[in-house]
Order: sequence, then structure tokens, then C-alpha cells
Amino acid sequence: MPLSLFSSQIHSSLFADGDLTKLLADGSDVAHMIAFERALAIVQGRLEIIPAQAARKISEKLADVHIEPANLAAGTRSAGVPVPALVAELRKQLSADAGAWLHWGATSQDVIDTALVLQAKVALEILGARLEKLVDTLERQSERHADQLMAGRTRSQVSTPITLGYRIAQWAHPLIDAENALPALRSAVLRVQFGGASGINSAIAPDGTAVSAALALELGLEDSPSWHVNRTPILTLAGWLQQVTSALAKMAGDLALSGRTDIAEVSSGTGGGSSTMPQKANPVQAETIQVLNSIAISAQAGLAAAASPLEERDGTAWPLEWHFLPQMLLAAGAALVHAEELATSLQAHEANLAATLVSNPEIMAETASFVLARNGVSRAEAKDLVAAAAKDPAPFAEALARISPVSLDWQKELDPQQVVAPARDMSARIFQTRRRG
Amino acid sequence: MPLSLFSSQIHSSLFADGDLTKLLADGSDVAHMIAFERALAIVQGRLEIIPAQAARKISEKLADVHIEPANLAAGTRSAGVPVPALVAELRKQLSADAGAWLHWGATSQDVIDTALVLQAKVALEILGARLEKLVDTLERQSERHADQLMAGRTRSQVSTPITLGYRIAQWAHPLIDAENALPALRSAVLRVQFGGASGINSAIAPDGTAVSAALALELGLEDSPSWHVNRTPILTLAGWLQQVTSALAKMAGDLALSGRTDIAEVSSGTGGGSSTMPQKANPVQAETIQVLNSIAISAQAGLAAAASPLEERDGTAWPLEWHFLPQMLLAAGAALVHAEELATSLQAHEANLAATLVSNPEIMAETASFVLARNGVSRAEAKDLVAAAAKDPAPFAEALARISPVSLDWQKELDPQQVVAPARDMSARIFQTRRRG
Amino acid sequence: MPLSLFSSQIHSSLFADGDLTKLLADGSDVAHMIAFERALAIVQGRLEIIPAQAARKISEKLADVHIEPANLAAGTRSAGVPVPALVAELRKQLSADAGAWLHWGATSQDVIDTALVLQAKVALEILGARLEKLVDTLERQSERHADQLMAGRTRSQVSTPITLGYRIAQWAHPLIDAENALPALRSAVLRVQFGGASGINSAIAPDGTAVSAALALELGLEDSPSWHVNRTPILTLAGWLQQVTSALAKMAGDLALSGRTDIAEVSSGTGGGSSTMPQKANPVQAETIQVLNSIAISAQAGLAAAASPLEERDGTAWPLEWHFLPQMLLAAGAALVHAEELATSLQAHEANLAATLVSNPEIMAETASFVLARNGVSRAEAKDLVAAAAKDPAPFAEALARISPVSLDWQKELDPQQVVAPARDMSARIFQTRRRG
Amino acid sequence: MPLSLFSSQIHSSLFADGDLTKLLADGSDVAHMIAFERALAIVQGRLEIIPAQAARKISEKLADVHIEPANLAAGTRSAGVPVPALVAELRKQLSADAGAWLHWGATSQDVIDTALVLQAKVALEILGARLEKLVDTLERQSERHADQLMAGRTRSQVSTPITLGYRIAQWAHPLIDAENALPALRSAVLRVQFGGASGINSAIAPDGTAVSAALALELGLEDSPSWHVNRTPILTLAGWLQQVTSALAKMAGDLALSGRTDIAEVSSGTGGGSSTMPQKANPVQAETIQVLNSIAISAQAGLAAAASPLEERDGTAWPLEWHFLPQMLLAAGAALVHAEELATSLQAHEANLAATLVSNPEIMAETASFVLARNGVSRAEAKDLVAAAAKDPAPFAEALARISPVSLDWQKELDPQQVVAPARDMSARIFQTRRRG
Repeated sequence: MPLSLFSSQIHSSLFADGDLTKLLADGSDVAHMIAFERALAIVQGRLEIIPAQAARKISEKLADVHIEPANLAAGTRSAGVPVPALVAELRKQLSADAGAWLHWGATSQDVIDTALVLQAKVALEILGARLEKLVDTLERQSERHADQLMAGRTRSQVSTPITLGYRIAQWAHPLIDAENALPALRSAVLRVQFGGASGINSAIAPDGTAVSAALALELGLEDSPSWHVNRTPILTLAGWLQQVTSALAKMAGDLALSGRTDIAEVSSGTGGGSSTMPQKANPVQAETIQVLNSIAISAQAGLAAAASPLEERDGTAWPLEWHFLPQMLLAAGAALVHAEELATSLQAHEANLAATLVSNPEIMAETASFVLARNGVSRAEAKDLVAAAAKDPAPFAEALARISPVSLDWQKELDPQQVVAPARDMSARIFQTRRRG
Repeated sequence: MPLSLFSSQIHSSLFADGDLTKLLADGSDVAHMIAFERALAIVQGRLEIIPAQAARKISEKLADVHIEPANLAAGTRSAGVPVPALVAELRKQLSADAGAWLHWGATSQDVIDTALVLQAKVALEILGARLEKLVDTLERQSERHADQLMAGRTRSQVSTPITLGYRIAQWAHPLIDAENALPALRSAVLRVQFGGASGINSAIAPDGTAVSAALALELGLEDSPSWHVNRTPILTLAGWLQQVTSALAKMAGDLALSGRTDIAEVSSGTGGGSSTMPQKANPVQAETIQVLNSIAISAQAGLAAAASPLEERDGTAWPLEWHFLPQMLLAAGAALVHAEELATSLQAHEANLAATLVSNPEIMAETASFVLARNGVSRAEAKDLVAAAAKDPAPFAEALARISPVSLDWQKELDPQQVVAPARDMSARIFQTRRRG
Repeated sequence: MPLSLFSSQIHSSLFADGDLTKLLADGSDVAHMIAFERALAIVQGRLEIIPAQAARKISEKLADVHIEPANLAAGTRSAGVPVPALVAELRKQLSADAGAWLHWGATSQDVIDTALVLQAKVALEILGARLEKLVDTLERQSERHADQLMAGRTRSQVSTPITLGYRIAQWAHPLIDAENALPALRSAVLRVQFGGASGINSAIAPDGTAVSAALALELGLEDSPSWHVNRTPILTLAGWLQQVTSALAKMAGDLALSGRTDIAEVSSGTGGGSSTMPQKANPVQAETIQVLNSIAISAQAGLAAAASPLEERDGTAWPLEWHFLPQMLLAAGAALVHAEELATSLQAHEANLAATLVSNPEIMAETASFVLARNGVSRAEAKDLVAAAAKDPAPFAEALARISPVSLDWQKELDPQQVVAPARDMSARIFQTRRRG
Repeated sequence: MPLSLFSSQIHSSLFADGDLTKLLADGSDVAHMIAFERALAIVQGRLEIIPAQAARKISEKLADVHIEPANLAAGTRSAGVPVPALVAELRKQLSADAGAWLHWGATSQDVIDTALVLQAKVALEILGARLEKLVDTLERQSERHADQLMAGRTRSQVSTPITLGYRIAQWAHPLIDAENALPALRSAVLRVQFGGASGINSAIAPDGTAVSAALALELGLEDSPSWHVNRTPILTLAGWLQQVTSALAKMAGDLALSGRTDIAEVSSGTGGGSSTMPQKANPVQAETIQVLNSIAISAQAGLAAAASPLEERDGTAWPLEWHFLPQMLLAAGAALVHAEELATSLQAHEANLAATLVSNPEIMAETASFVLARNGVSRAEAKDLVAAAAKDPAPFAEALARISPVSLDWQKELDPQQVVAPARDMSARIFQTRRRG
């Protein structure tokens, strides 16, 4: 077992993805904190809260300063947050007169929360694009397989016929909900944090409100009252990420089931080999998505435990966000990558799909019941007739024709093809819920 | 230990509240399922999918039918869901010709999911009203205590002065976020579920779409494609409930801390006695809110584990919703009741609040640093000066006056009263985020 | 959705079981608290800490006193614990001279923790007996099906042959671990709690140690230093319960899979009907076990969150035990009942079991590789040969006979019957780990 | 926010510790897998299952082979486990005749599970030593502060007097439970895993049993039947780790509270500075321990979700162990390091400790009640008298002397010093539970 599936050289190519790994690398983490300090100086210079020259010097220097992450280790060990060490390192690179005005009126939490939000903003762009692409792919595949009959299964039992196109549309449904929720998510989550020591900007009063508004504009974020102990933005983001990974795990779970050796109706992905069984093609990507979802579930619970910080700052809660939120982002990111590959490579095995329908004629039992009921047979009697027909050694339609008190073309009445139209309807209703930009 | 804190006669008056308990009682649960069956018959009669007379008979009978919950026990034990037994019981009360058209084209999940949503609708009305009232109370209390100075605390240490009014505004902040999220929440969550056996309404094709739309209208819900395996509505509701209980737990945690014998700056609630210590006034309500929040956190994780149902229905996931969602509703409901009592009865102990400021003069250390820095003293030197003054046996302002290289009216510079204005500003910004109907 | 699956008249017959429900009923809860108070008076009388006559009166009266649980509601609402109200109610039933000596030197936590442990003791007897019976049943079934070949599956793919007997032995393995852990569990968990107000029995010094030892003896518990803020006993019990439900969920998951319409190799349980599909036999009991395990997982996390109580008593943590521990006990209890029924009714469908082996000849691919390797063919070459044979349209043994560079009786080499012996061996090793009383 | 608090160069010096980080580094992970393969060849050579010369060659080469972790990335991405790639890399380093006998009869899970157990063995040595040292330190500190009076607090309210020595003994209590559990833990957890493809060692029948026993001996582990789908060892280890971190979080929580600016009765650790408030000394280590415990709680829930693997291997569950178990080990490891530093540096602030007692005379209210009751005053009357005395403006003892119907030396009766003896007793009872090797 490794230090972390996400950082291990052995495992990260499966469990993480390059873009988000890069975003959360130590160097990038530091860069986002520096971006806050730089923007702060810029707007404070502009608002004449700090000297214009100091602001210019800070802005210029911090535009391409490099701080070695390891240099922040000792300071973080001692202070619990990297900000004091970072500010000290940055001051070393500035003249004393400019350095004095760095971090003016800010507290560690302003830096860390806003940097986190800036990282979240990039992450949402990456995830949003992947999500849109995946829903596009699923829509295409749903359409392609709209006429492909398939046995529905409820509670692990063959139920009534559906189409593969509808099954795929079901996968897309929660992803479309997530897609539609993105604009509101962005405004709820991507809020600038600026409150100073205890949240009221007392050190730079009465300029807090103006700085906050200018910072938001400078950084492309929403303005907000200080949310230092209001962790709704974190919870909201976590909730959305959980919805995404849950939705992908549903798709992955279905694919792993459909791809079992026993069923083999649908396959996708490349399949992993075994160290000892040459014939095996393990559904590695579908499994990995489910693993990532379980990681996200645990992480969300961890974030909820951090969402009731005491007083003006709570050191027992806050660092949990830096542990759990990255895991949720990484889980969603990698799961989307795997899901896209699975969706793209999905293949229907028509013979097996058809064989299941043929070997389970009672899949049309519900239809038979409804046909009988519509033709005046009582529900109780219809149920008995259908059960008798299902047990009859003769083919289902034949048995029904014999047993049924009403004379009908049972072959036609029980033709599973009739579900294609309603499956198309429901799939269309699902995809019509997409609110396109 | 009891069967359940929420149903125990001993504990439920503390951990649950009457309105939600009533909503989730067995009889109410059954009544909401019956409401679905009745509405279904009404709209199917109107759409001429079932005979008008059958629809009328069903509608009339189900308007005031009583089904004894215990009569559904055996059927639930055998089927895993109460619906087959319920439908059988209802048919007993109907003539055979009407009974045949009951539950037409519906499946258990349609009944249970829609009944759950109808219960959620009532719950959101109850919770929404409590939330609004609580934010009103907090707004009033924040205003009332807007000039009451108080020591801020970050990471358990006295930090810089704030006001009690701002502390209260912080409590309101996440609750206002929840309040503002309610309209979008309602449309995301309160969706009718109607899909039939495997989700595509094949039994009543091509009428599924029309029935769904009519049902939504009849029941006062949003229309939706079948979401039988898209559990986003449940996750979204759970996320919102978690935000509410987390926010209340923050307030409760602060109140329990402020009300400690050691601090005694703010008190509220009635206080619970001890079985052996006559002087004690335990913060029972504040503790209970925190307990309820922990229950909600575990429940949310349980719901996330249910959010990736396999295939067209998943019996290993679905019942988890009936276990965990009620717990979250009950937790939020009772926590809001306790929070309202705490908010209303909140009292500031001015002497103790003032004493903390007096005995921690270095609470103005940050201010002193900024004053020095604004007057041209370098950050490093300012930090050293302030540290020296803090260690000086003389009063802080006096020591600073002596040590400081710049001549200032330190008594005035270090007056904590100056934080009242920025605390008012930030509080106002928080309450201005309320989007009133 | 109901108030609680465990208390609902509709759902509890499926999700709970009678014995544990009775144990955790309000009346039983109160009775266990009274048992503590009575034992305390008895031993304090014996040790001459309280007057002998008072002890006798308390002992006699409390032997069959009835306290209406609802009478404790108001007191619990106000104090957060039922003990002050209970003590007051009991005193009403005693003469003043006897009542004065009731609850002597005890605090609420002594009563509640010890009562909880007494309930846990009964629960462990019930669960232990069920566990033993279930392992017996599984041992019998494993033996009965020891020669029944079955396709093993790893990562959802057919792997190599096993026997149904071995599959069953795997189910038993973690249950045997739990059975073996029971004696140590009992001594770690079933500890008397007696510490008085802050844990050091100061009110009755220097008699605390003697009373604790005598109480333990009187109540049939282990003696222990006060564990008021050492929640290891709770965590240990929770861990064991989780192991039991996890093990049962593994068995249930396998049974639900093997009983899928698609596979139908093994069936068990009675099967639940559908409200609309007459042919369905949902694996209700197997699903329910998995649901109960998910409930236990969430509950265990809730208990862990309560395991770091602050100072001498923590009202934000403690009540969580009364919420979550009952859920774990109830989950384990009902899951064991369902598992016993599943284990007893388990049936092998030989034709389907055999068909899977026949239709997956490459299930012997690993064997073929090893045979080739043992006969001097290099691993790489063997792998290629086997892969080629697997793809050959001819039967696997035939293809191998044609392709293989070494001449062997491939029909015999690939006979799956050869796994019966090692499967018997491993099954025997598993059951030999049982440490019988 | 970083990729992981445990791997980040910025954060890991606070949240992780060097020894465990090294143990879980990629290179060490690979080395432990290689140790399995080497031991397997050695014992199979010894048992004449593979040629002696091949065994010798494998043993020699694998004694100091280096495999670059990054070389396993592509194989892990494709297979979901690093073993096929590792075996291939190792074979490259061996002659073909030796390489053919590498990994003979083993499957990926044998390698990974046994390597994990070998890592766990080292981890338990590290953690066990730290635990023993910490309990030693606490025992010493408990003794040192055995006479230091302190106000006990229950439910955040001052309750009755205790000693600091007893408070410290309470911290040790669950840690001693964990210490005592270690021997049984080791035999339950440190089991060799050897089962081959589907768990019955069919490929090398009838030698599985012998190889397993020899492997256990060679690797210093317990022999066991194949536990490939019995995850009790993992759950048991996780449960123990949770108990350790929960216990440490209790100690840390108490220390953070006692060290609040408001209380300042006990301090320890070095204290972290603030980026903007020069006077602050944040309790970084105490907070970090609580953060690590919250991480462990989430991780344990993640492991429970993996404990019911389906069929003979479950790719959706298994990798969760590699994600969550390292987090629990790392959390326990770093928390023990911080706790040792806190325990060692703990300092009592006598003046503040005394001041709390003085300013809360009603801390002796329970004692007064008992004194009155022992002197024949009824409980009800005693309660009223004490309450009246507590409200009296005069000092508590004086007021009682005036009000009390019995004449007593109240100054002496209410002397908190009398709790020192029972506190010593209870502390001694706690430390006497240590079962020393």
C-alpha cells in the first residue's frame, strides 16, 4: 500500500488525472496563494490604501516569483498554515518598503480560502468541460442504441424490456442535473474571502467592503461578506462533486454487471489482465470509478465534520478541507476521464442481448397482465393466468393463447419491440432537460 | 439505550419535534402513498386511460380510506416494500371493477418515491418557515447587540475585538445561504416520479408523458422524466439539510463555549440540571443541536452510499433512503426548534464580556502593529515593539507609549470601540444577502 | 418514508427482529437503569455505606417497580438525560428515609453507561447464539456442497473453478473470526461504570473501589476503573458488530448475484413479489442484509465521532451512542436472522452451475498454463499457447491438444473435478479455526 | 489546497511522520511485494515444488533487486494492480528458467495482501513503541501532578474538583486499552495470504497448505486459510487505529480547551504564530491531532465499505484498502508523535487552576449535599439548602454554616483537598490495568 493512490507513481496514472494533479501540486498551491497576495496589493494600491509604488513593486515581483514549497515546511509545521512562512519568503524578495505593505489587512484564512476558491474555479472549468463532453457522448450513444432491445432488471431480476438507449439515457440523467446546476454552483462557491484577523476587516476599516469588491473583480470571483466560518461554499461544492461521482458510479456499476462473463451484453473499456489467468479482462476502469466514488463519499463526510467551525476560526476543522476537498476533486476528475473512455468504447453484444430476452419470455408477463386487464379480465384472474402461462412448458405466447379467456394475437401483443417507442420518448425527455448555454 | 432517539417516548421530546414526527408517522406515510394512487386514478380518468367511473370510485373511496399500518407488515416483510400489500388492501375496499384500475401502469417505486417527495414538500414548508423565523430572530439580535464589544477568538485564542452582533451575524450567514437556496431546491427536489416497471411507462405507452405531466400538476410537484435511478433529488435535499444542521451546530457550539462556567459571556436556553450537582446548568439544547448535526452527517454518508443504484432498481440501495432521509429531516427540524429558543433567549453578560477585553490588552496587538506600520515603522520592527509592549508589566497602551518611536495617543489608537463600525458593516453585508420573497 | 425502519409498524418486521426490539424498548431501557440503582443500593447496604434497612427497602421496591417511560419525557427534555427524572420517580415510590439513599454517590453517567452495558450483555447473548447457529449451518451446507463444482469469479469475471462448498466456507470465515473474538470482546466491553460526578467517586471516598468491585460482581460484569471518558468499550463493540454485518453482507451480496435471473446458480430465501411483475422473486432478504450493513457502517462512523469526549463528560458526544449503538445491534440482529434463513434454504441449481463451466472452457486456462510450465514450456510461450487455444473455435482441450508442443491427456488435465480436493482442504482449514467453547 | 496533506512538501512535516512516510513510499511498497515473491520461491524450493536452482537464483537476485516504481505505472493503469507489471519486470532480471518459477501458484492478491500485512507489521512496531512511550510519559506526568487540584468539568460546566493527575490518567486509559490489545491484534491481523487464483491453491494442489505454513514462518507472520474475501484483519487493524486516534483526540481536545486564553490552566506544545496577530500561540499540535482523528474516522468508514467483497475478488472494494488504511496508519503515527511532545511539555499553571476553584465555590455543592444527607438531612431539603447557600452573597462555607440545620466545620467539610486521595486511587486503578510484557 502506498502513501496515497493520488500521489503514488505506481497508482496515480489509474486513480488520478494529469490536469487536476497539476492544479493541486505544491507549486501550483503556492502560486494560487501568491496570486491572492498580488491581487490584494494591486487593488489596495488602486484604492490608495497602500502606496502606489509599493503596490507596483509587489505586483511586478509577484508576477513571476518562485517560492520553493519545501521552504514553507518548517513554518507550516510551526504555525499550522503555510501563510506566515510564505509572507516571510515573499518579503525577502521585496524591498523593505514594499514588503511592509504586502498582505496588508489580510489574515491567513483570506489567503488560503481565496486560493482554494481560485483552484476550485480552474477545477470546475476542467470538470465542467469533461462533463459536457461526456453527456454529449452519452446522448450520441443513447441515440445510436435507441432501437437495441435489452432486458431491464429491477432488484437483480429480469423485469420488463427496455432499450440500451434508455439505459444510457439513465446514466446521463443525473449528469445533466449536475450540468444544469453548474452556473448556480459557480456563483455559490466561487466567492472571494477577505475578512482580516477576525472577519470584520477592522485593521483596514472602513475600507474592507471596497477592497473585497475590488478583489473579487480582479480575481474573477463573486464578492461576498467574509465567509470565514460559513463553510456553505465548501459543502455546496462537495455536494455537487458527490453527485457527479455517484452518477458515474451508477454507470460504472451497470457496465461492470453487463460486462460480467455471465452476461456479456455490453462491453467497454480495454480490460485489465490478470497475473495468473490469461483469459481475463477485468473491468478496471468501471471498478476504478466505483472506488473513486467510495473515496468521495468518505471525503464528503469528512468535510461535513468540518462545517461547524467554532468562534472566528477553528483549527480542528479547517485543515480537513485541504485533505478532503482535493480528494473529491481528484476523484471526480479521474472518474470523468474513465467514464468518457467507457462511454466512447461502449459496444452492444446483440446476440447476448437478444438471448436474454428469448430465454426470459416472462419478461412480457407485465404486458400480458395489462393486455388481459384492458380486455376485461380481472386483475386477480389475470395474475393467475399469467403465472400459469409462465410455468407452462410451452412457449409463453403459445401457453397464453391456450389459457387466455380472450382471443388475441399474443405473438404480437407480447412483441418486445413495442417498448422501443416509449423508451425513445423517455430518453428524449431526459436529454431535453439539458439547459444549453 | 432506546430503539431510536426519535421514536422513544423518553427521548423524542428532546431529539425530535412534533410536526415532523407526525409527518413521518406510519399513518401519514401510508396516507401519502394513498394520495399518489388517488391522484393517479384521477388524472388517468381525466385522460381517458382508465374508465371515468372507476376513476371516480377510486377518487371517492381513497379520499378518506384508512389502512391500518400494521396490516402492511407481513406484505412488507415478504416484498421488501409496502406497496403490493397496500394495493391489495385498497382493492379490498373497492369494487372489483374499480380496483382493477387502481395503480394502473404504476410500480412500487412510483408510489414510494412520489410519496416521499410529497412528505419532503411538507417538511420543506415546515423547515422553511422555521428557518425564516430564525434568521429574522438572529437579525434582530444581531442589531440589538451591534455595539456589544466582545473578544474574537481564532483557533481558541483571543484574537481581535469583534461585537456580539457580528458573532450572531456569522451564525445567520450560512442560514441565509440555505434560505436563498430554497426556491431552487424545491424545483430540483420536488419532482413527481412516474415510470412504471422499468422506467419507460411501457405498460401504458404512449400515455406516460401525459400522465406524468398531469400527475405533477395534480400533486403540486415538478414534472420530470422518470428519476428511478437518478437519485440527485435525494442527494440535493440531503445536502441542503446538512448545510442547515451544520450551520446550527456552529451557532450551538459557539453558545456552549460562550456559556461555559469559565467564560459565561453569553447564555441562552434554559439549562439542564444534574442528577447530583445542584449548581449545574448544562447547555442541553446547544448540545442537542450538535448531536443532531452529527446524526445528520452520518445519515448523509448513508444516502450517498445509496446514490448509485444498479440497473433499473436496486434493492440494496433504495431502502437506505427511507432510513437516512427521515433522520436528516428530523435532525434539521428539532435543531431549528432548539436554535430558535436559543436565539430568542440569548443574553449578553456585559461584565464578563468586558472583563475578557480588559484582561487581554494584547487583543489590540494587531491594531498596534498596523498603527506603527501606517506611521512608517517597518513590519519587523513593529512586530518586535508590540511583542515587547505585550510582555511589559505596564498596561499595554502605556508600555507602547513608552517604547514606540512615533508619538501617538495610544489610548485612543487602541480603543476597541473602533471595531463597532466595521463589525456593523460586515453584519449588514451578511443580512443584505437575504433574497426576500 | 417512516420515522424509523426499526420502529415503524410497517417496516420493522423486515428490518428489525423481535428479541432486540424488545431489549431496546423504552420499558426495557428503564428497567435496566433501575437494575443499576437497585444493585447499587444492595452492595452499598452490604458494605455498610448506606443503612441496611434503606438498602433492603430499595432492593425490595425496585425489584418490581414500574415506571411509565412517558413520565420521563419532560425531565429528559430539560436535563438531556432521563436519570434525574427517573430518580425522582423512584423516590416517589420509596419512603423518604430509603429514597435519600437511592442513587448514593452515583451520577447519571454511571446509570446510563452501566444500563447500556447490561443491555449489550443480553444483546451479545442473543447475537452470539445466532452467530454460532449460523456458522453451524454454514459448516453443514459447506460439507453438503463440497463436491459441487462452481465457476469462481474474480473482479466479476469467471476465473477458475471452485466448489459451492468453498464459497460457503468463505462466508463462514469472517463469522468464525467474530465467534472466536467473542470471549475477549465480552471482557473488553462488559465493564461496570461507577465514578460519580467527575469520575473519582469523591462523594463516597474512600469506598469507590469497593463499591465498583461489588457492583461488577452483583451485575455479572467486569470491574473497571471509571471509563466515563474512555469510550473504548463502545468502539470495540461497534467494531465487532461491523465485522458481523460486513461478513453477512458479503454472503448476501454473493447470494443476490448467484440468484440473478441471468445466473440462477444458487437460490435461497423466499423471494419477494412485485406490485406489477408477476414473475419476479426479488432477493428481499439478501438485499435487506446489505441495507442493514450500510446502516451499520454509517452508525459506526457516528460512534467514532463520539469517542473523544471532552473533559469529564461531553454532552455533544454521549447521546450519539444511544442513537448509533442500538442501530448497530438491531442491524446485526436482523441480519443474522435473515442470514440463517438464507443459509438454511440455500439450494444449488446444478444444471446452471454446470452450464457455466461448460460455456467457459477457458476457466481452465490457468491450469493449462501451469501444466505447460510444469512440462518445460516457458511462461511466455505457455501464455501465448493458451491464449491461442482460447480463441480457437474448437473445444479448448481439443485446441490445446493440437497446439501444445508437449503431448498430454488434455481432457484429463483440464478436468475441473481436480479442484474438489483443494477446495475441501481450504474449507476444512477455515472451519478448523473455530475455537469451540 | 495540496494533492495530499501526507505527501505535500509543505504540509507533510506537520500531518505525517518520517518513519511511516518511508514505510509507505513507493519504493518500500514495491520492496515488500518483492519480499513476498522471494519468500515464496525460497519455501517452494525448500518444499521441492519448484526446482531448487530456480529458487536459489530467485532468492539471490531478489535480495537486492531494484525496480523503479514508475515502471509499474502503465501496467497498473491497465491491470488495476501493479503485480503483473512487477512480475514482468522481475522476470526481465532473471534467466528464463528461473523466471518461469517466479510467482508460482500465486495471484496478485497474495502478493498485495501479504505485502500490506508486512508493512502493517512494521507499522505496528513503530506505533506500539510510540504508544508505550506515551503511556509511560502520561503515567509519569499523572504522578507528578497527582496533588494538583483542578476543577472538573462535565458538559462544559464546572462540576466537582479533580486533580490534574487524574485528568492525565483519563487520557492514558484508552491508550492502555489499546496497548493491552496489541498482542491479540497482532495475531488477528498479521496473517499470511496465500490462496492462488480463486483462493483454493488449485494450481499447486495439494501443496497449498504446506506452502502457506512455510511462508508464514519465513515471513514471521501467522499462518491462515486464504482470507482473500475475509477482510476481518483489515477491519480489526482499522478499529484499533481508530481507538488510538480517538484517544489522542480526547487528550488533544482537553489540552486545547485548557490552554484557551480564557482558561490557561494547562499549556503544552510550542504554539504556532499568526500571520497578523503577534500575541497568538495557536495550539497547532493539539488541533492537528484532532484533524488526524477526523481523517481516521472517515477512512475507517471507507474501509468498512470495502469489507464485503463480492465473490472471489472484488475490484470495486479492494483498492479502497490501499487508499484508506495508509491514511489511518499515517494519522495514528503523526498523532502519536504530536501527543508525545504535548505530554512531555505539559505545564500546569497553578495560579489559574487555583483561581477557578476559588471563583466557583459551588464546585463543592455536591459535597455539601452529601455531608448534609449523611447527617440526616433529607435529600430534598439538602438540595434546597445548598441552592440557597450557592445564591447567598456570602462565601459558600459561611453561608452554609449559617443556613445548615446541623452544626459542622464547613470550612473543613468543603476543602477540595479531600479529592486528592480518591483521584490518586482512581488514577492508580487505571495504570494498574497495564499488562506489561
